[in-house]
Amino acid sequence: MDGQAKRNNYLDENFDRFVGHLEEWLAIPSISTLPEYAEDVRRAAHWARERLTAIGFPEAKLVATAGHPLVYGEWQVDPRQPTLLIYGHYDVQPVDPLHLWSSPPFQPTIRGGNIYGRGTSDDKGQVMLVLAALEAWAKVDAGLPVNVKILLEGEEEAGGAAIADYVRSHPEHLQADAVLICDTHMVNAEQPSLITGLRGILYTEIVVSGAKTDLHSGSYGGVAPNPLHALCLLLGRLKGEDGSIDIPQLAAAIPVPSPADKQFWQDDPLHIEEALKAEMGVSAMVGEGAYPALERIGLRPTLEVHGIRGGFTGEGAKTVIPAEAVAKVSLRLPANLDPNEVFGWLEEAVGNKMPSGYRFHLTNLHGGRGLSVNPDNPYLRAAAKSVEAIFGALPVFMREGGSIPIAALFAEVLKVPIVLLGFGLPDDRIHAPNEKFSLNQFRQGMKTVADFLGRIRF
Amino acid sequence: MDGQAKRNNYLDENFDRFVGHLEEWLAIPSISTLPEYAEDVRRAAHWARERLTAIGFPEAKLVATAGHPLVYGEWQVDPRQPTLLIYGHYDVQPVDPLHLWSSPPFQPTIRGGNIYGRGTSDDKGQVMLVLAALEAWAKVDAGLPVNVKILLEGEEEAGGAAIADYVRSHPEHLQADAVLICDTHMVNAEQPSLITGLRGILYTEIVVSGAKTDLHSGSYGGVAPNPLHALCLLLGRLKGEDGSIDIPQLAAAIPVPSPADKQFWQDDPLHIEEALKAEMGVSAMVGEGAYPALERIGLRPTLEVHGIRGGFTGEGAKTVIPAEAVAKVSLRLPANLDPNEVFGWLEEAVGNKMPSGYRFHLTNLHGGRGLSVNPDNPYLRAAAKSVEAIFGALPVFMREGGSIPIAALFAEVLKVPIVLLGFGLPDDRIHAPNEKFSLNQFRQGMKTVADFLGRIRF
Repeated sequence: MDGQAKRNNYLDENFDRFVGHLEEWLAIPSISTLPEYAEDVRRAAHWARERLTAIGFPEAKLVATAGHPLVYGEWQVDPRQPTLLIYGHYDVQPVDPLHLWSSPPFQPTIRGGNIYGRGTSDDKGQVMLVLAALEAWAKVDAGLPVNVKILLEGEEEAGGAAIADYVRSHPEHLQADAVLICDTHMVNAEQPSLITGLRGILYTEIVVSGAKTDLHSGSYGGVAPNPLHALCLLLGRLKGEDGSIDIPQLAAAIPVPSPADKQFWQDDPLHIEEALKAEMGVSAMVGEGAYPALERIGLRPTLEVHGIRGGFTGEGAKTVIPAEAVAKVSLRLPANLDPNEVFGWLEEAVGNKMPSGYRFHLTNLHGGRGLSVNPDNPYLRAAAKSVEAIFGALPVFMREGGSIPIAALFAEVLKVPIVLLGFGLPDDRIHAPNEKFSLNQFRQGMKTVADFLGRIRF
Repeated sequence: MDGQAKRNNYLDENFDRFVGHLEEWLAIPSISTLPEYAEDVRRAAHWARERLTAIGFPEAKLVATAGHPLVYGEWQVDPRQPTLLIYGHYDVQPVDPLHLWSSPPFQPTIRGGNIYGRGTSDDKGQVMLVLAALEAWAKVDAGLPVNVKILLEGEEEAGGAAIADYVRSHPEHLQADAVLICDTHMVNAEQPSLITGLRGILYTEIVVSGAKTDLHSGSYGGVAPNPLHALCLLLGRLKGEDGSIDIPQLAAAIPVPSPADKQFWQDDPLHIEEALKAEMGVSAMVGEGAYPALERIGLRPTLEVHGIRGGFTGEGAKTVIPAEAVAKVSLRLPANLDPNEVFGWLEEAVGNKMPSGYRFHLTNLHGGRGLSVNPDNPYLRAAAKSVEAIFGALPVFMREGGSIPIAALFAEVLKVPIVLLGFGLPDDRIHAPNEKFSLNQFRQGMKTVADFLGRIRF
């Protein structure tokens, strides 16, 4: 039995224990955006540090930040071997609406070959498969094949301010030959894929004010400003029914796609558009019909409203005209754009489009650049070979619509290849009720990462 | 000292006790729209029944309904005298946003000559002043001057289904010569007014659905339906920035105002427009600029969104595209329109204006017709004289923008004059945080109603 076979064997023999570890970690509700869960976030960080120590990392510690702590581990095995920096996050999204979960979000539950719970796919499950791969090397080969630095953050779902500060201020400490990130998904279980592009993100709050107090719609309806209606008018003007975003500087800044990308998007050889429709349960897509669906996800910017607060939304009837209303609005951006510059464009557009009779204020909650990776580098080629070895199919190179701002930051600061090797599936419902992770993907992911670690050794 | 002077004296001497009674009643959080307060609503009903008994009503009882109970009291004094039916409500609006209250909504607090708390002006304070006036007659004159039926409901803020059923099925039991309702406000403390018109109301929920589950805006943004955005587009199409409502049947059904009303609205001799701006704290009004402000409140229909539910509105950032979003939308209607017919028009307009790619459903939560009173009747003339006697100024006859569906129902079923004699002030912030009622209005109101009771005696 060669080394990889032994390691695969080890991963199979210990698979139930790895699932158990993951269940332990998932049971900690490490919701980073809600202050009342701060202690749970810290517990989840401690849990990860203890796993690194158990695997054999000589160095494994928590790094204090202005926000939630970072977990850092380092294992230098041979200065002649390359150094891989592995990134992941141990925080999770909020869980509301809670009543739509079939099993409690923090009581991980296995049904039909999937493990259900908040963080299963995004990202505890994917970090855990990396930890399993590292353990397989540590136990079967008495050490890792390459030098490894691992950095886990607790604010990925909350803007990632702490890790961004840390990476910018510690470029030499984090220096590596490549960065591995397991926090994305494949096209489907039969068609593995590697991500070569991510969109940037800008997340904002728009506060609109009208009268100085809430008003009764009988006594004042007809003369009173209604900030909820102003937000509706504004958001309808910022993005039309056809999906077009009316921010002139943004429209002018969208890059021209490469002929190869354009061809892939037009041909859609993997029938991803049909798969997306099935996942969404819709017969027709909404958005910019003039562009192929894959281009709309891979390159085009978006503007989405995530929630509108103000007035009365409880049971029954309340005839209030609120004094103030707030919209949570994000934009996904082509990789070439700076979210802070786009925020200025958005502020200007909101000013131009706001109905008269209202005051408004925008807050830039967080932002991060996108990423565009050249697939022609040894680490991405190695990853493709590992995927082929374990999944039995060549991966396609894809642009993914989500944002991992830290990936762009690593590329900018460390100037090394970023390998986005994710094992999620499109129906994992990340950020939504009933998030799950396929146990088969969990198993194959461990083996793929273990294979990759051996393949990048000189 | 004549009778009215003695009764005024009694009301002054017992004023502090009446304030104490009101405080007791206000402390019961009788929020009719929220199921968890059902027991409190019942307690508030019992409290009112006990007051009627204490005043001396031979009959005072709770009437069970499908919803919250009615309180009914009757005191027949002389079959030759007219019978007055008095209506009020003992339920109150919800209190959110709670953090904007300067004192807790259900701990009535006196500051600067006002009593603060939910229900002070709408409507417990105004019912309490009627009870005080009745008591003054009962104690000073050993009986009431006319026959009185009093009917208090506990669902005014929740659609009033129970009382509507009751009135429709008990027209003979409730038969009276006039109906007195103290649930409106005057122009200001120096300028008393009597209401001769109320708008109707239709309160609806519009549910819009997109994908079968919540989606991540990174992976699906650009192709996914966003029901929040669809609602924004829809609500912006139903009502424009200029306040015009695009429901063709509704536009065609707005009655032509009388020349006298039009003149009053255009001249605005009481400078109500400036007062409204000051109350709202705005320099310019929002709405249909082609019509005077008073006409926009007194006659024109409105369409207001009161809240939008769906997605994420908590602290921080969540990049969710919700599967479903709900808007609470009401229309105020000219008195000639049937809200149920208007609901059909609204459904049709929503169908025509809904962006493609969405499913939707409308619910008619409740509705009520408006009211248009001919001021030339003996009961309204008596009320005007009572107001002049106590306030020292002739009242103006006004159309008010709010809705009291039960007033229209009384007019329809009993076919008698409706006297809308309200003592609220425009800055009472009914339905909003820091609702208050002027103690001076409370005192003058008691005396006015006591005077009115004597004035309608043959």
